[in-house]
Amino acid sequence: MSARPAPAPPARLTRWEQRTEVPLFAAGLIFLTGYAVRVLTPHEAEPWNDIALILVWSTWLLFLVDYGARLRLSGLGPRFVRVHWLDTLVLLLPLLRPLRMVQVYLAVQRRRDRPRLSLYARVIAYAGLTAGLLGFAASLAVYHLEHTAPDASIRTFGDAVWWACATLTTVGYGDVAPVTFWGRAVAVGLMAGGLALLGAVTGSFSSWLIQVFTREDEKRPPERG
Amino acid sequence: MSARPAPAPPARLTRWEQRTEVPLFAAGLIFLTGYAVRVLTPHEAEPWNDIALILVWSTWLLFLVDYGARLRLSGLGPRFVRVHWLDTLVLLLPLLRPLRMVQVYLAVQRRRDRPRLSLYARVIAYAGLTAGLLGFAASLAVYHLEHTAPDASIRTFGDAVWWACATLTTVGYGDVAPVTFWGRAVAVGLMAGGLALLGAVTGSFSSWLIQVFTREDEKRPPERG
Amino acid sequence: MSARPAPAPPARLTRWEQRTEVPLFAAGLIFLTGYAVRVLTPHEAEPWNDIALILVWSTWLLFLVDYGARLRLSGLGPRFVRVHWLDTLVLLLPLLRPLRMVQVYLAVQRRRDRPRLSLYARVIAYAGLTAGLLGFAASLAVYHLEHTAPDASIRTFGDAVWWACATLTTVGYGDVAPVTFWGRAVAVGLMAGGLALLGAVTGSFSSWLIQVFTREDEKRPPERG
Amino acid sequence: MSARPAPAPPARLTRWEQRTEVPLFAAGLIFLTGYAVRVLTPHEAEPWNDIALILVWSTWLLFLVDYGARLRLSGLGPRFVRVHWLDTLVLLLPLLRPLRMVQVYLAVQRRRDRPRLSLYARVIAYAGLTAGLLGFAASLAVYHLEHTAPDASIRTFGDAVWWACATLTTVGYGDVAPVTFWGRAVAVGLMAGGLALLGAVTGSFSSWLIQVFTREDEKRPPERG
Repeated sequence: MSARPAPAPPARLTRWEQRTEVPLFAAGLIFLTGYAVRVLTPHEAEPWNDIALILVWSTWLLFLVDYGARLRLSGLGPRFVRVHWLDTLVLLLPLLRPLRMVQVYLAVQRRRDRPRLSLYARVIAYAGLTAGLLGFAASLAVYHLEHTAPDASIRTFGDAVWWACATLTTVGYGDVAPVTFWGRAVAVGLMAGGLALLGAVTGSFSSWLIQVFTREDEKRPPERG
Repeated sequence: MSARPAPAPPARLTRWEQRTEVPLFAAGLIFLTGYAVRVLTPHEAEPWNDIALILVWSTWLLFLVDYGARLRLSGLGPRFVRVHWLDTLVLLLPLLRPLRMVQVYLAVQRRRDRPRLSLYARVIAYAGLTAGLLGFAASLAVYHLEHTAPDASIRTFGDAVWWACATLTTVGYGDVAPVTFWGRAVAVGLMAGGLALLGAVTGSFSSWLIQVFTREDEKRPPERG
Repeated sequence: MSARPAPAPPARLTRWEQRTEVPLFAAGLIFLTGYAVRVLTPHEAEPWNDIALILVWSTWLLFLVDYGARLRLSGLGPRFVRVHWLDTLVLLLPLLRPLRMVQVYLAVQRRRDRPRLSLYARVIAYAGLTAGLLGFAASLAVYHLEHTAPDASIRTFGDAVWWACATLTTVGYGDVAPVTFWGRAVAVGLMAGGLALLGAVTGSFSSWLIQVFTREDEKRPPERG
Repeated sequence: MSARPAPAPPARLTRWEQRTEVPLFAAGLIFLTGYAVRVLTPHEAEPWNDIALILVWSTWLLFLVDYGARLRLSGLGPRFVRVHWLDTLVLLLPLLRPLRMVQVYLAVQRRRDRPRLSLYARVIAYAGLTAGLLGFAASLAVYHLEHTAPDASIRTFGDAVWWACATLTTVGYGDVAPVTFWGRAVAVGLMAGGLALLGAVTGSFSSWLIQVFTREDEKRPPERG
């Protein structure tokens, strides 16, 4: 969010990013799928559980390689870690990768010259998709961390999704809620990240609705000229 | 929300839509009433329960006929399903029909040359009425799905309405909450749809209040000129 | 919220309103105090409980007289009930009177030429005070309706205030919540009215904060001219 | 929030404020740390518990001296208490000091000519940091007040932090909630203060996102000219 225009990245970095965009998007999807299979199938369910584990680690290695390459090509040295703090965070917590995937998805769709969406619709699409994917990732993580806790109220994946929806919309029934330290840590992350995104959805929808009504007014001849 | 101006619909489609507007509005009301009677009266309460069932299915057939006619007249072929996705969704989940009914209600009222409301008031009226009707429909559906579940906390229709109000305003006490899969699915839909509408109400009210106070300032002679 | 400018009210009505403004404000305070004493003291606590009852009814009679006088002076006849629907509602549910009292309070303060507050500060003051008074009135009403219910969770006035705060801010813990029909009806009213007001507070605060930061920027010489 | 430009403060007051800015910031940190140690370590844990108590009281004395000096230098006399009501409140409830500390932190960082942040980023940083510190202070206070209550649900500091996060984001699960009078009083303060700040974060994020998308549009050549 820096106001001072960042220096243009080296041309080789830009090229790298353009070429890796789609593969990394696919890797993100594979990572999420692998993690979902790993979490949702019982450990004895050979061989899917093992394959999922291998997929999760190999896609993460891909993310690491990409991070290293971009660090190299940027010419920033160790400063890269701090300047691109969001990328560093996403590398360490790969469940946050949807944040980047949705961006790529919308950018690719735009280039394909699909019917362009209005500004508000794109904000809603970006924030809504990101919130949805983050909610799905958080459901997986919370289910993973909670369902074996002795006094857990989140016992099935359905409970976890239900909890994530109630949290993202700030309804917060509290009929199911995480009880372990790490489960609550994920929950706080979901609240912080998700609320901002939902705020963007709500704000954009409200602005769009007002725009629609304003346009309707303009179509009709003025009556009180 | 497409920014690219859609091609004008064929004149016959427009005429069809204008003629069916009011009958469909009435059909929507009958559908909701029929569903309410069906859900709220015991199954033995002959003949009302049977009449309600017939009303629900026949109005739904009307919606189907209207959908087919518009698909035909639009000249879009199967693309109609995707382009008018909201209409398709409302056909499949007719409890969402209030979304369209409120639009018609406000349009008709405007044509009758009633005292026109300000922009904000119309947004509030549209979003508030839609939220109210959706909340009513969701209460019916959740009561229908939940009240026979073994460990349900929503046992009466009053509980369901209370739950819907607490959900729509994101208060979410959690003293009553759905426990079945389909009950929770309806709840997530209510959260997603309702929050956006409530956001529009809150945003418009806030803008309107600021406008009122600004106008008050302008009426008074400037003191610090 | 009509956009069409309302016809100017008759001069006699305007004069009546200006003269009764302060007495009605005092009557509103007395009504609230009387209701609070009536609800919060045991019925045996003579003579305070009886005095409070008399105060409540006599101030309400005052409101009725004022309503009748304004209906008369307006020259609108029975249409007055519908045009001034908010006044009608406040007459029937006098606990909503704070909506009008805060308006008068701010108007009087402005006339006294106190240091004028900025637009945002006035919106915040209006909405915050109204929300506070409505919350107080709702706490009284909910305590009155709930504390004798067999399975009530709101058993003391402190519980009722705590519940009202959690409701107005949409936090909604649900540790205490109304269980009777009328208690829940008051709760829905508090949600609906309060949320809009709180939305106005939040929105104004946010706008004000952005204004403050913008002004700070302007004070500093531009660096990137 | 006065719209009437306040008279410029005396030069000596301005100089005092500039010189005490950094020491008071450090004192605020020491106060918070001392309070945290005092609350989180058992009373028998000598000598840390005693040192913490001394730190808390001596930093508060510093705040008192600073308040007295500014009251003196301002030349306002007793009116200072009312005009600078926020400072008075922060003196009486020193856990609110983060409100002032974050302001100083951002001001100092700006003077050091760090890469300047955009308007929205600064609002988010200010409101987010303040909300975080207030939440931390409220967690400490609520843990302090609640963990010895007979029927408390907040029994560990982790519970208190979890509760504060759920409250600040208005999720409000209600699985843990304060039950004592003073614990609830702190909670109401956190709701009131925190919500406004969170509203500012959400609003700014939403505006920033829309700005980003708008800029993206401008970069691309217009297609529908």
